[in-house]
Amino acid sequence: MSGNGFGTLFRFTTFGESHGPAIGCVVDGVPPRIPLSEADLQPWLDRRKPGQNRFVTQRQEPDAVRILSGVFEGQTTGTPIGLLIENTDQRSKDYGEIAQQFRPGHADVTYWQKYGIRDYRGGGRSSARETAMRVAAGGVARAVLNALVPGGVIIRAALVQLGPHRIDRSRWNWETVNTNPFFCPDPGAVADWEAYLDGVRKAGSSCGAVVEVVADNVPAGLGAPVYDKLDADLAKALMSINAVKGVEIGDGFDTAAYSGEDNADEMRMNADGSIRYLSNHAGGILGGIATGQPVIARMAVKPTSSILTPRHSVDIHGTEVDVRTKGRHDPCVGIRAVPVAEAMMAVTLADHLLRHRGQCGSR
Amino acid sequence: MSGNGFGTLFRFTTFGESHGPAIGCVVDGVPPRIPLSEADLQPWLDRRKPGQNRFVTQRQEPDAVRILSGVFEGQTTGTPIGLLIENTDQRSKDYGEIAQQFRPGHADVTYWQKYGIRDYRGGGRSSARETAMRVAAGGVARAVLNALVPGGVIIRAALVQLGPHRIDRSRWNWETVNTNPFFCPDPGAVADWEAYLDGVRKAGSSCGAVVEVVADNVPAGLGAPVYDKLDADLAKALMSINAVKGVEIGDGFDTAAYSGEDNADEMRMNADGSIRYLSNHAGGILGGIATGQPVIARMAVKPTSSILTPRHSVDIHGTEVDVRTKGRHDPCVGIRAVPVAEAMMAVTLADHLLRHRGQCGSR
Amino acid sequence: MSGNGFGTLFRFTTFGESHGPAIGCVVDGVPPRIPLSEADLQPWLDRRKPGQNRFVTQRQEPDAVRILSGVFEGQTTGTPIGLLIENTDQRSKDYGEIAQQFRPGHADVTYWQKYGIRDYRGGGRSSARETAMRVAAGGVARAVLNALVPGGVIIRAALVQLGPHRIDRSRWNWETVNTNPFFCPDPGAVADWEAYLDGVRKAGSSCGAVVEVVADNVPAGLGAPVYDKLDADLAKALMSINAVKGVEIGDGFDTAAYSGEDNADEMRMNADGSIRYLSNHAGGILGGIATGQPVIARMAVKPTSSILTPRHSVDIHGTEVDVRTKGRHDPCVGIRAVPVAEAMMAVTLADHLLRHRGQCGSR
Amino acid sequence: MSGNGFGTLFRFTTFGESHGPAIGCVVDGVPPRIPLSEADLQPWLDRRKPGQNRFVTQRQEPDAVRILSGVFEGQTTGTPIGLLIENTDQRSKDYGEIAQQFRPGHADVTYWQKYGIRDYRGGGRSSARETAMRVAAGGVARAVLNALVPGGVIIRAALVQLGPHRIDRSRWNWETVNTNPFFCPDPGAVADWEAYLDGVRKAGSSCGAVVEVVADNVPAGLGAPVYDKLDADLAKALMSINAVKGVEIGDGFDTAAYSGEDNADEMRMNADGSIRYLSNHAGGILGGIATGQPVIARMAVKPTSSILTPRHSVDIHGTEVDVRTKGRHDPCVGIRAVPVAEAMMAVTLADHLLRHRGQCGSR
Repeated sequence: MSGNGFGTLFRFTTFGESHGPAIGCVVDGVPPRIPLSEADLQPWLDRRKPGQNRFVTQRQEPDAVRILSGVFEGQTTGTPIGLLIENTDQRSKDYGEIAQQFRPGHADVTYWQKYGIRDYRGGGRSSARETAMRVAAGGVARAVLNALVPGGVIIRAALVQLGPHRIDRSRWNWETVNTNPFFCPDPGAVADWEAYLDGVRKAGSSCGAVVEVVADNVPAGLGAPVYDKLDADLAKALMSINAVKGVEIGDGFDTAAYSGEDNADEMRMNADGSIRYLSNHAGGILGGIATGQPVIARMAVKPTSSILTPRHSVDIHGTEVDVRTKGRHDPCVGIRAVPVAEAMMAVTLADHLLRHRGQCGSR
Repeated sequence: MSGNGFGTLFRFTTFGESHGPAIGCVVDGVPPRIPLSEADLQPWLDRRKPGQNRFVTQRQEPDAVRILSGVFEGQTTGTPIGLLIENTDQRSKDYGEIAQQFRPGHADVTYWQKYGIRDYRGGGRSSARETAMRVAAGGVARAVLNALVPGGVIIRAALVQLGPHRIDRSRWNWETVNTNPFFCPDPGAVADWEAYLDGVRKAGSSCGAVVEVVADNVPAGLGAPVYDKLDADLAKALMSINAVKGVEIGDGFDTAAYSGEDNADEMRMNADGSIRYLSNHAGGILGGIATGQPVIARMAVKPTSSILTPRHSVDIHGTEVDVRTKGRHDPCVGIRAVPVAEAMMAVTLADHLLRHRGQCGSR
Repeated sequence: MSGNGFGTLFRFTTFGESHGPAIGCVVDGVPPRIPLSEADLQPWLDRRKPGQNRFVTQRQEPDAVRILSGVFEGQTTGTPIGLLIENTDQRSKDYGEIAQQFRPGHADVTYWQKYGIRDYRGGGRSSARETAMRVAAGGVARAVLNALVPGGVIIRAALVQLGPHRIDRSRWNWETVNTNPFFCPDPGAVADWEAYLDGVRKAGSSCGAVVEVVADNVPAGLGAPVYDKLDADLAKALMSINAVKGVEIGDGFDTAAYSGEDNADEMRMNADGSIRYLSNHAGGILGGIATGQPVIARMAVKPTSSILTPRHSVDIHGTEVDVRTKGRHDPCVGIRAVPVAEAMMAVTLADHLLRHRGQCGSR
Repeated sequence: MSGNGFGTLFRFTTFGESHGPAIGCVVDGVPPRIPLSEADLQPWLDRRKPGQNRFVTQRQEPDAVRILSGVFEGQTTGTPIGLLIENTDQRSKDYGEIAQQFRPGHADVTYWQKYGIRDYRGGGRSSARETAMRVAAGGVARAVLNALVPGGVIIRAALVQLGPHRIDRSRWNWETVNTNPFFCPDPGAVADWEAYLDGVRKAGSSCGAVVEVVADNVPAGLGAPVYDKLDADLAKALMSINAVKGVEIGDGFDTAAYSGEDNADEMRMNADGSIRYLSNHAGGILGGIATGQPVIARMAVKPTSSILTPRHSVDIHGTEVDVRTKGRHDPCVGIRAVPVAEAMMAVTLADHLLRHRGQCGSR
């Protein structure tokens, strides 16, 4: 395999290029008798869909997902679930220059170096279009988590930094997230972000972002030390998303400056016999195993290099060129990465839920 | 499996508890006819060994590694390499309280929640003692990289932040790293760090750190999109190290505040037909595939919670207790994580080297 | 995962039910720059296609395979290859009784016991229809083998036993195989087999068979001891085919009655410095590694239990019933298993070729 | 990895050469809180131990297994179990000729072709000595099965054919198996076998055998279609044992000559609501999933080529030689393969038990 699948027991494998006929995936290992239909998956895909406002690419893709197998009379059967999305708006006609040139900061050059061939149309396999299948698989994972975990697992993400502009965390409001084009949880930041990103967009430039993803009601005990720690698998899951350059769990890099006294999440007992933590610096994971607190991760998304300003580059013949990227691009790819981060959290948790059940049973 | 192995083709699996009779590992998939002996592995283990100065735990372990198989007449045979280190200084006599109590910020509570049983002696399986085997496996990986990559791959790590104190990167000197007890690359920072960490140690406290690891001469093309991106696997590798809470590739979280113009690593041609990059914000990886530039990663290490100040906690019976950790602990576990970070870089690169060769041949 | 994929480096994962909208698979790990098109795959599928003569099921399926990804301008790109076949002739209308009853000797009852739900239409996931995707993946594997092995690898299978009737091996002729409806290599047996199977068919009965598959020009050295021996993986590959109950390598069960003197394949040197074996009892594999001789395997295929004679069974309510299977079935499923056996040989060899190259390079 | 591990959730990885300092393995994924000690493993190893009677090799190895990790206060902890056996009777002094020559029918030549190097002492990694670790891992698997399956799973094997001599199945008596040096279940065959094998032994020859292994009380539902069918994984498990050339499930190759009427295992209901099968041609597996009937497999073991009669061969320099194998060898390696077959059945079932629990829960 060359790395196009994710997970051990809940495992999905994706295929498809940006401008091929379709993208798809197979989700293997789904427990049987879980209610599932296309209507359960489509809303997650719609959140990631391009063309929804002026801050994301204007490519128009309905991204209508079809379930081809593994579901019978509204329930999963335990057999693999085939998912397919047809590509409809490819516009691959005018790839003259890009076919030969490497966009700086893109995977163009490395795919060429690795494989000696590449489907250059729209970035081919390295296009963020692949993330639609992550979101679809994430929808299946959510259905699994909700069916098997009493009370369900709530997975939500938000943009906590746009370019250099961070939110004020004291104003965090999950309801705000779905009422603005940035998935911003801070109602006080939206207007500023709008002005900032309009400027970026009009300049033909781009900016980075930080996404935070939180999972509530994760059962204590999920995770598989030593190498498949829950946070290690989350780090891999999030770092595998296009353009991500950093991942943190809980307080992340800030903990480097903490003292041991500050960092320890103290414990007390609840009246019902469960453990109550007085803080959550650990982001819900200790020793690679979930504590039962919210699992919290953040990821840094670099600015796309698809910009109007010409940059020095080279082409496949070794000629020096200057590259200027026209076409329909996201000024901040971090925005549409928000539902993708949720999806990767979901698939990671679903996998560890099944792995835990396999080794330790239902306790 | 419950996650005690790492890698696909170059794969190692470790076992052993802090206070059991021995720790060990099996390294499977090593190419044949590579020169290897215990003398090639021991120096890396010695760098990680406890008890070497006053800034690390005073536990005395020779950490002498034995090769039990897979090497014949000084060369690897292609069969699995069994490695074993006997535990000699366990002092497991006085674990009375700790046997029942959960140290805050430690894996005590989560192992208990997951398994319903734990070897509490010295942290058992969750002890950083396990990382000795990572370093041993890393030594094998270095031998593989050096044998298969012309010119060899140079993997070096350093501590770039100790508690709140960062190095001045303009003074970076790799030679300095091995001349101070902190693996600090900034000669101007050592004295301050010494004073700072003495204070932490005498207070019975602890502090965090940031480790940076750099691999030079990594062949372009290593990496396996989409989910097993080189940076995704590195993120997993580093995040799986005890106490790590964040991982960055290249400029990492800083890129969130960059513009697309700033972030793109521009390219020119060298006279010899190779590509010259004008910067390395990407940390040597684009689209999950190595560019040929240095591969750069950083990881944040939280402060250990083994401190003298009592912290609120609970015990296995659900009683609220206050825990105060005596015993021989590292005031900054980030220091001894430096050779571990190198090892995890080495095993990740060795695995991707073999994977690349499997799919793409020797080009 | 629940076992719907095969292989380590050359890995394919299939999905789809007999009477769902489509079946498909993803082939991951294919080396880049290998010529491939749908025209390379279709001939193999056509050999397995139902409805070609009176000795196989009369279901009419064009089995037209589409490549959805991973191929660009006629060459593989190294990215996953998505393959899809639409189901066109499902006739799922009249499954009244079968929906509730378990056919003896079929997977109906065990799927129900395992999952508590099943897609009963045409056998659902347990239908031999799934083997179409094996044949498609096998076509990709053949392209890989032919591109990477000088001279190519020739993989051919034949039916060596139909019911109780064995071929006379002294009359073996590979050219005969494609000139009769049984893939029979013995021209002297065809007429008898025709008469025999007509009798079986008219009686509404069924019979078993033995398939032999041979791979010529397999490079010495393929295989991965100890658990992933080439013969162990072949045994798994062939035993995973529907209705297979036994697998042999080389002389197989006959070797139990051999003496050591008989069994040893003696060696002499060829003038060109290669080894010449004086016999091939081992079937081309020693210690799990290919010797360079032809790799030979056989598999026993049981008779399908889809017969007209009523058999005792039970239904999903625990009521005793008698089941009589009407519909369009193969009187001998072993016939159409011939191209499937070839495909499983091909994927196993392609996987081990890449694995060998990964660990040992090109030698 | 190069194939030295087996299993998905219950996974063990072995290492060690015949004449190295030790052999060992790591068993990962064992559920926690299962009673386990060295005394649970040793009896299985003792059954396989060499030197116990004149029909097996006279090498003397105590094969005392040590548990190095993963067990605490008599119970498994869920962390990996390290197992080690020191090699004590290696006698590697006189390997002069064998170091250069390839024994026909042995892996000598293929290891050389694959790796370009080999530890020739006693067969190195390809020695059946490796199977001691399979038996040790099998002991752990038995403990898992017995702890998790109500009533336990009973796994027993016997030799059903020695050279050309088959048992009379009507006289099968499990109690007989442990009262003769052949693990023969037919009390009427023992004397004849003794005379026959004495003849083989005195002639410096060797013979093959067939081993049958049966697992009683396997829960219905174990198995993971499509490629990881229970029988496919069993086939791989058994075929991976040294010298095995064929594997059958249930009636195996005989089913090729059956009619569909004969082959269908009919079903009736028991008073307690469970299904009663009127026969077990399927060997307890349908569609790759256990039916709840006894799981039955057979494997053919070829005669070892370590014989006194000289055979044509070549050496590492390409010179033609004649090889005559002196030393302490088993006249019938099939005998000591009996406990190994049991072990491989045990590990396969334990793995599928955990996999089933992971996907489908405890139902």
